Amino acid sequence: MTDNLEMGKGAEFDRIRKVWQVLGSRGAAGGDDCAIVEFGAELLAISVDCSVEGTHFQCGWLSHLEMGWRAGAAAISDLAAVAAVPRGILVGLGVSEELPDEFVSDIMDGVGAVADSVGAKVWGGDLYRSNTISIGVTVVGGFDASPVRRQGASPGDSIWVTGLLGGSASAVSAFLEGRQPEESCRTRFAKPEPRVAPARWLGNRGATAMIDLSDGVLSDLGHLVAASGVAGVVDSERVPRLPGADLLDSELTGGEDYELLFTMPGDDDTLIEEFENRFGLCLTRIGRISDGTGVTILRGGESYTPAHGFRHF
Amino acid sequence: MTDNLEMGKGAEFDRIRKVWQVLGSRGAAGGDDCAIVEFGAELLAISVDCSVEGTHFQCGWLSHLEMGWRAGAAAISDLAAVAAVPRGILVGLGVSEELPDEFVSDIMDGVGAVADSVGAKVWGGDLYRSNTISIGVTVVGGFDASPVRRQGASPGDSIWVTGLLGGSASAVSAFLEGRQPEESCRTRFAKPEPRVAPARWLGNRGATAMIDLSDGVLSDLGHLVAASGVAGVVDSERVPRLPGADLLDSELTGGEDYELLFTMPGDDDTLIEEFENRFGLCLTRIGRISDGTGVTILRGGESYTPAHGFRHF
Repeated sequence: MTDNLEMGKGAEFDRIRKVWQVLGSRGAAGGDDCAIVEFGAELLAISVDCSVEGTHFQCGWLSHLEMGWRAGAAAISDLAAVAAVPRGILVGLGVSEELPDEFVSDIMDGVGAVADSVGAKVWGGDLYRSNTISIGVTVVGGFDASPVRRQGASPGDSIWVTGLLGGSASAVSAFLEGRQPEESCRTRFAKPEPRVAPARWLGNRGATAMIDLSDGVLSDLGHLVAASGVAGVVDSERVPRLPGADLLDSELTGGEDYELLFTMPGDDDTLIEEFENRFGLCLTRIGRISDGTGVTILRGGESYTPAHGFRHF
Repeated sequence: MTDNLEMGKGAEFDRIRKVWQVLGSRGAAGGDDCAIVEFGAELLAISVDCSVEGTHFQCGWLSHLEMGWRAGAAAISDLAAVAAVPRGILVGLGVSEELPDEFVSDIMDGVGAVADSVGAKVWGGDLYRSNTISIGVTVVGGFDASPVRRQGASPGDSIWVTGLLGGSASAVSAFLEGRQPEESCRTRFAKPEPRVAPARWLGNRGATAMIDLSDGVLSDLGHLVAASGVAGVVDSERVPRLPGADLLDSELTGGEDYELLFTMPGDDDTLIEEFENRFGLCLTRIGRISDGTGVTILRGGESYTPAHGFRHF
């Protein structure tokens, strides 16, 4: 199934492609945010997402409860991305021997809180010794409607995002410079809300393809258009920025907003009011799908094809 | 469901108990090796198990392929422990930027090989940056018969183990002392075989309770008798040791053999020949379940209640 694994550019994705190549028929890669597999008469969505001190956050940036919430939210966001219904969470939690018990409980309290916010239960986990805090979250969901996949966008579809972007990246940028981030940005970094209910609603309203914004508009739209076999053009000036967010850069690479990026046939803006009334969340049309490949950004009347989103490697 | 969470002694399990207490109704702990949950009309078994450089292995001890196999086998063993049928695996893989791509592929090749050996597919994963190699494996299984749980042993049941024990602990002991372990022991450490088929067969033959030997006979039998609300007496001299294994100590705490420990009504030794013919694997009756609590070890005609198995904390 490796033929199916169309992803955007980047060294991280090259490594992942190599892994699936080595696995060959022993792998079953769908190329979505989640694996979606048949289980009995149902479809099961499952994904794993790891948050590690030093890579995804520094200890001083977050309370232990926020570490747990954020790790859980990032994983649940993968379920939202395919319009799944979250059911259960498992946590592989690595902590040092010295970390007080109450902090371990706080981390799991955060995971429990975000699970509860989307109707999922904590099913289990593995607690082990590790020098740095490592939170590996597995999420499992089901479906009450068809999944919405990365694959499915067609030329002529419009491209949309939920919410206001750039908050999380701006918070990280401030932390790295030793500044205290704007509170609005810090909240987006520390307690992102996985868009489970909006995603299911959008699926029912005809979204043709969807992904969550973990690496930034550029990178994530790159995956979506690669999976769909189309091209995407984004009007940079239409991309909605969180007030106070100084880092949604011109290349739209600010990541970890965990909002939804999706496509719909046509460009029916009447969707906006209904969505915003229902979810208290912005909805913005930012571009269009066309024939071709890759992502093009329009800015100040010019178009260009920029570099990548967040890179692990 | 925290009332249900009966585990044996140890600081690690105290921490885990506290976590479930904090989670309260947001958790759904069954107290087995796997979470076993209803999914549509089926039962789903799911577990996460993490293998981390420095905690579970050192880099010089294993090839990268063996790291992957071992991590996968340890997780799959949790499915074997409840007599589940493995279906899929996800891997959260943390590696340093400097680790050559081929080693990343080797690790996943090992995971793929052990998955394939039990008929499961690699469904997905998460690749991230980490200073030490960290392999978090989530396994998913279904059932074609009733699960066998930790809970279910009754007074009068006999206690059994598959295989020969102590090999893995002896290998670790040798490595830690800077010696090369006996090859038979090294193999048990580096490429343990999850007992999936034997477990399903034993379930069909009436095993009343089961657990896999990850922390050692003492600790794991401790969980089983705690979950079942009974006591266990083990005849130390009956516990089958791998030739060359110097470390299955008098307290039977040598861990990570990933063999099965289970209970059966009565003490019908005719099971042994059929089992050994079918699986080419030893089967040994090592003790008996009685009324009471905890684990007692008989040795040289004396009985005593010893300390714990492997402790993470």
